[in-house]
Amino acid sequence: MSIEDLRNLRRDLHRHPEPAWREFYTTARIVDELETRPLDALYVGPEVLGEDRNAVPDDDELDSWMARAREAGAREDIVERLAGGYTGALAVLERGEGPTVGLRVDIDGLPILEADDDHRPFEEGFRSENEGFMHACGHDAHATIGIGVIDAILDSDFQGTLKVVFQPAEEVIGGGEPVVAGGHLDDVDYLLAVHVGLDHPSGEVVAGIDGFLAVHHLSVAFTGESSHAGARPEQGRNANLALATAVQNLHAIPRHADGATRVNAGVIEGGTASNIVAEASEMEVEVRGETTDLMEYMGEHAERIVRAAGEMHACEVEIESVARAPSAVSDPELADVVGAVASGVEGVERVLPSDALGGSEDATYLMQHVQERGGKAAYVGIGTDHPTGHHTPRFDVDEESIRIGIETLSGAIERIAVERP
Amino acid sequence: MSIEDLRNLRRDLHRHPEPAWREFYTTARIVDELETRPLDALYVGPEVLGEDRNAVPDDDELDSWMARAREAGAREDIVERLAGGYTGALAVLERGEGPTVGLRVDIDGLPILEADDDHRPFEEGFRSENEGFMHACGHDAHATIGIGVIDAILDSDFQGTLKVVFQPAEEVIGGGEPVVAGGHLDDVDYLLAVHVGLDHPSGEVVAGIDGFLAVHHLSVAFTGESSHAGARPEQGRNANLALATAVQNLHAIPRHADGATRVNAGVIEGGTASNIVAEASEMEVEVRGETTDLMEYMGEHAERIVRAAGEMHACEVEIESVARAPSAVSDPELADVVGAVASGVEGVERVLPSDALGGSEDATYLMQHVQERGGKAAYVGIGTDHPTGHHTPRFDVDEESIRIGIETLSGAIERIAVERP
Amino acid sequence: MSIEDLRNLRRDLHRHPEPAWREFYTTARIVDELETRPLDALYVGPEVLGEDRNAVPDDDELDSWMARAREAGAREDIVERLAGGYTGALAVLERGEGPTVGLRVDIDGLPILEADDDHRPFEEGFRSENEGFMHACGHDAHATIGIGVIDAILDSDFQGTLKVVFQPAEEVIGGGEPVVAGGHLDDVDYLLAVHVGLDHPSGEVVAGIDGFLAVHHLSVAFTGESSHAGARPEQGRNANLALATAVQNLHAIPRHADGATRVNAGVIEGGTASNIVAEASEMEVEVRGETTDLMEYMGEHAERIVRAAGEMHACEVEIESVARAPSAVSDPELADVVGAVASGVEGVERVLPSDALGGSEDATYLMQHVQERGGKAAYVGIGTDHPTGHHTPRFDVDEESIRIGIETLSGAIERIAVERP
Amino acid sequence: MSIEDLRNLRRDLHRHPEPAWREFYTTARIVDELETRPLDALYVGPEVLGEDRNAVPDDDELDSWMARAREAGAREDIVERLAGGYTGALAVLERGEGPTVGLRVDIDGLPILEADDDHRPFEEGFRSENEGFMHACGHDAHATIGIGVIDAILDSDFQGTLKVVFQPAEEVIGGGEPVVAGGHLDDVDYLLAVHVGLDHPSGEVVAGIDGFLAVHHLSVAFTGESSHAGARPEQGRNANLALATAVQNLHAIPRHADGATRVNAGVIEGGTASNIVAEASEMEVEVRGETTDLMEYMGEHAERIVRAAGEMHACEVEIESVARAPSAVSDPELADVVGAVASGVEGVERVLPSDALGGSEDATYLMQHVQERGGKAAYVGIGTDHPTGHHTPRFDVDEESIRIGIETLSGAIERIAVERP
Repeated sequence: MSIEDLRNLRRDLHRHPEPAWREFYTTARIVDELETRPLDALYVGPEVLGEDRNAVPDDDELDSWMARAREAGAREDIVERLAGGYTGALAVLERGEGPTVGLRVDIDGLPILEADDDHRPFEEGFRSENEGFMHACGHDAHATIGIGVIDAILDSDFQGTLKVVFQPAEEVIGGGEPVVAGGHLDDVDYLLAVHVGLDHPSGEVVAGIDGFLAVHHLSVAFTGESSHAGARPEQGRNANLALATAVQNLHAIPRHADGATRVNAGVIEGGTASNIVAEASEMEVEVRGETTDLMEYMGEHAERIVRAAGEMHACEVEIESVARAPSAVSDPELADVVGAVASGVEGVERVLPSDALGGSEDATYLMQHVQERGGKAAYVGIGTDHPTGHHTPRFDVDEESIRIGIETLSGAIERIAVERP
Repeated sequence: MSIEDLRNLRRDLHRHPEPAWREFYTTARIVDELETRPLDALYVGPEVLGEDRNAVPDDDELDSWMARAREAGAREDIVERLAGGYTGALAVLERGEGPTVGLRVDIDGLPILEADDDHRPFEEGFRSENEGFMHACGHDAHATIGIGVIDAILDSDFQGTLKVVFQPAEEVIGGGEPVVAGGHLDDVDYLLAVHVGLDHPSGEVVAGIDGFLAVHHLSVAFTGESSHAGARPEQGRNANLALATAVQNLHAIPRHADGATRVNAGVIEGGTASNIVAEASEMEVEVRGETTDLMEYMGEHAERIVRAAGEMHACEVEIESVARAPSAVSDPELADVVGAVASGVEGVERVLPSDALGGSEDATYLMQHVQERGGKAAYVGIGTDHPTGHHTPRFDVDEESIRIGIETLSGAIERIAVERP
Repeated sequence: MSIEDLRNLRRDLHRHPEPAWREFYTTARIVDELETRPLDALYVGPEVLGEDRNAVPDDDELDSWMARAREAGAREDIVERLAGGYTGALAVLERGEGPTVGLRVDIDGLPILEADDDHRPFEEGFRSENEGFMHACGHDAHATIGIGVIDAILDSDFQGTLKVVFQPAEEVIGGGEPVVAGGHLDDVDYLLAVHVGLDHPSGEVVAGIDGFLAVHHLSVAFTGESSHAGARPEQGRNANLALATAVQNLHAIPRHADGATRVNAGVIEGGTASNIVAEASEMEVEVRGETTDLMEYMGEHAERIVRAAGEMHACEVEIESVARAPSAVSDPELADVVGAVASGVEGVERVLPSDALGGSEDATYLMQHVQERGGKAAYVGIGTDHPTGHHTPRFDVDEESIRIGIETLSGAIERIAVERP
Repeated sequence: MSIEDLRNLRRDLHRHPEPAWREFYTTARIVDELETRPLDALYVGPEVLGEDRNAVPDDDELDSWMARAREAGAREDIVERLAGGYTGALAVLERGEGPTVGLRVDIDGLPILEADDDHRPFEEGFRSENEGFMHACGHDAHATIGIGVIDAILDSDFQGTLKVVFQPAEEVIGGGEPVVAGGHLDDVDYLLAVHVGLDHPSGEVVAGIDGFLAVHHLSVAFTGESSHAGARPEQGRNANLALATAVQNLHAIPRHADGATRVNAGVIEGGTASNIVAEASEMEVEVRGETTDLMEYMGEHAERIVRAAGEMHACEVEIESVARAPSAVSDPELADVVGAVASGVEGVERVLPSDALGGSEDATYLMQHVQERGGKAAYVGIGTDHPTGHHTPRFDVDEESIRIGIETLSGAIERIAVERP
């Protein structure tokens, strides 16, 4: 695929951002591309994933996104294979004796309304057509890099097996565990994962990112009792007030001297009418920690606070654990190979051996799995000039970094097969 | 219409509760009934209302309720006349020389999920078919009483003009003002409005209810800035946190020594994902006061609190005034006539001259309008055994009180025409 | 005592405001006056009160106020009789056959810093000499009226027994119960209590005040764990944060449709240094209700909220019930006599039969006690122009109302003895 | 001074903890000791400090601590020299040609109630005699080490000048700046500061501590309006509610991805009585950051939140900047010398080249000052088994670490004079 074709692919994906487990168009587009290549195997949706998954939307929601994918031109036969929201794909290339190298790219978008001014995707006509959703974290570029790496390896002397997994549902920390459960990574000797940007400008490469925040995502429901807010305010048990108290106090969990922590009550919703005391309210909360212990410290406080907020307003509380991801580290030997290759790639001006992510990632599940079985893993950062931060309405990538990503990763894969670090 | 027919009508309306400005099935059903009667005029939807209306849903929402009404069997020709959510109807009977008497009944339902156990409408098969919506305030009975009163007057010696308005959108304090603006009440000499229940058991009648709480309904939007909650928490301006602070402090507005006040942040919503600092949040708030002054006291505090909550978290704040209704009083001379008639109605065991509503009502707009033009108004309470409070999932009425309401109101209308109190 | 002497007495008391159970100077001054009159009995301090008392300060605090009283010129022999904070006095006049009439006046001041500008007591040289304390509720006038009534009765033809109780500690709802327990009111047939102002101007008299809010005063202590706020924030259990959460949510207890409620976290205190997570915090809270039931509704919510706030921040909670007072009603027959007499008093322009206090009073204990034993009670309001509200730094009384109070009450006492209403 | 004498000195200081600017007994005790030694100069109180100081208590408070010091046996002539709370001392030894080496020890205690069970100082009879105050951070050991180092250098071959500053008011970040302003450090070539414990056990030494949190201490006052909480709640402007809102939201300032931050509303106070809406409230707040920028980020948020909390409840807000301290770093060349010496000290099992403090210190002012003038500085940690964390009621030190501290520091001072690192 030419650089121009890759750019067009990325822009097509950018126009069709799909959130977790709803990547129907995206998967279909990727599979459609992959089928034109001489692969040794191509697994689609349920063939890639284990059965247990978190944060899967209900059937109505899935149906509406399947319909939207079809309208956007997704191939019907592929969409059908993804029923139930089993999205994603995995391509396998077998090229003789050699180690099995895995590459993981993620493909989902975010529920963010994309900007329609002062924003290149808008100006150049590839702004999101799924209003309210957006590729605001560069996963459109990641998927494109995945295709580009396959092409590059097909053109190379690589000896060994390459598995490229196009993982769904990273943004909800949902896809990592099912990909592991799917079993395709059990024989992987070396795993690379990739992310663009992360506040590194175009021309920088981070060979092995560390500092993943462990994360726990909780769903909380308060159930009180409705009453007429004018006539019988005292008969209500106010689920909105319980939620407000919880939100305030969650954000006030004491900081921890052992390292970074995070908390966010990202989604809140409650009540039915202004004149009814709210019977029910819900929120989506996440806590993070620089280590798994710190994440658990935050989680214990969060749970205690939420339960007490319910008691305070005589509401029942249900807490559901939606998703978790551990922390992880890149193996320095593997990162060294990546770094050495990157130094020789055109356009790369600076290679950092490591840097802290400062966020969370469910790639850590894949990395842990490979490492626990004796393999090595590295999470590679490909710098890209992004005008605003990740997860904001004007996020964009410098498309030149797609080429850098492809050359760095395919070069590293070739050399790994030789050097077996 | 026989008592049994009236009961069936009420149950049919109960099965099809429609919230404010979406009373398509309800209006069609009422108009369908009215067309079989020898009326002198029948105004439908936009013919009844002024143009300016509050809290009208968007076209998608209206369309989906129109479609639902059609599916439920509403007459297409009537539904079409209600386009744009101009719902409701007004029937006119002219019966010779005499005063013009108005009767106002309201017809809308509530966004409450009706109970499906321990609840007669469920057991006897007339639970709401519009899942999540419910006649939890007895407006199904009110509409039925309106029809019954027309039949009773048709059978009577009443001399004068009767206007019965089937008012939409009471629950959002939305229909009262447009009904006044529609002009049909300009010549009304005596206005009666009716409500069932209000914590009065079957057999009680309140001749002239007072103590309406003035009410102001506000819609509040906070706009902050999204950021990645793990990687860049400090770059967010958290609209959920602003809202939580506002909710807590709104409910803490100081009580007032001059009389009853109320506040409720009934609906809250904010954010898009657990890992994104919420850029936007919204809430629906109402304040009330025993007098208009007290309502304004609450409103001023509410506005100040909401603005400061925004500033506190560096969010912009927009406050929209959605709806207001004043306080009002029943004219004792008119209430006396109602009370005298009620005493003679079978099944009435106790007549109270007056009682405090303790809630709000946009009937106050109609009452004020008639009173300002020299007429008299009374708000009549018809007791009914209701197993749980108004606006709760197990609310129901004793259908016997429908007959009592019809006999009390039609009897009062007849006598008003004679006595001209 | 001449009107001028009475004014001087009131101003002397105003210069020496003493809070609850610390009325050493005040009691001494009153007793000193009373001893010059031909009384039949004079009870001082512990002779007036039962033993159990609420909200008594510790010995250091009592000692410092005793010392201050002595410095201000209080008679040493009287101060000594008040040891332990048993303050107050009771004068008895026996004047032949007739009913026993009681009059209750309260004598304590408030912990408010008196204004030093735009304030008559400052300009005319009788501002508080006890910095931070103030007669901001008119009890200086009440005590003066008590003396004046005794003089008036001494000069009258009154037949019966008069008991005037100078009650301490009204502001903490502390003195009423011990006065009842002291037993001196057991034989009282008619009890009058008096309050100046209450938003009634000079020239108005309220014959029988009702609408006392029942009140419950709670003392709350949170105990967490201290830690270094910089080095080990996570090891703290923050008692200040628990308190802040409680304060916010206490004020947000739902209003009640059955009547007026109140809540106030009037005093808060916590922590020891800015760099230490607060181990302990305390607050003084009161709840009130238009009825005892409403007060208890508030109290139950308050307790639940406070306990949950503690749990939320892993703090222990102790709640102490400091004081309570019930609601009460004035007997209309007795009020009628007061009203009739008041109409004839010079300067009285308007007599209201009744009005709602809208506050709390431990006179209700005395009233209940007399009423339960078959007697009658009325709480009399003597209007007075007060420039600002009760309990504010610029509160003052129109001294002319002292004369009106004396004439109204002494006249009523005389007539009660005759009419025995 | 023998090891036993040193232990007794430490215990005597422990029995007499004095908070910032009130170290009258402590200074007197130190000066009394120093006067028995052949010093070249001894500066006391105002001779050591610049004039501008933060967080100095009022005269009443100072007087009461001066009185307490005298009662405890402090020498009158020394106490008098400390009038105005100019506490602390500085000893100078001139021993021929050589560099000027400074040693800084701090001497103040904390407002913490010392435990009276399960606590060695209680069991062995040297628990605090100043109830409510405690040496809970080891400054009693620091002062003792200061004396011990002087003795050791007197016995040594040290060539150069030694200045030991016994600094007051570290706990309020108050003493550092005035010591710098006093000018005695202007000619210091090498500065050492020392702290025991910091979660390092006995036998560990940290040669050069880094990771000082920059800190800003703010004093906040809310002024609202008092009113009678029962009779006129709506006329109050509730300063306690403003404070509670501020406390909650201060602790919820977003964490920052660039590094550690802290916030603590350590002291709160408001209101005068449970039945008065609080007119005034105050709090002592501190914010910290791993860098000065992060501290300023926290400070800006804190100020905005506090101001908005005032506006929300219609209260005026005053914010006073009480104290600040920057971050600082230990010079590795100097730390190397300390580390090398420490390795040879009996009882030292482990020497760490550096570690993060994770707290704040106004020693950073002294370090910055020396470094800006071309000198070098290191902050030395002397491990000590402490049963509970710093700033807690059961904090204690292993007295053996006093000897280790003296030998490490005096050895380092000798070697510095030789090696001039």
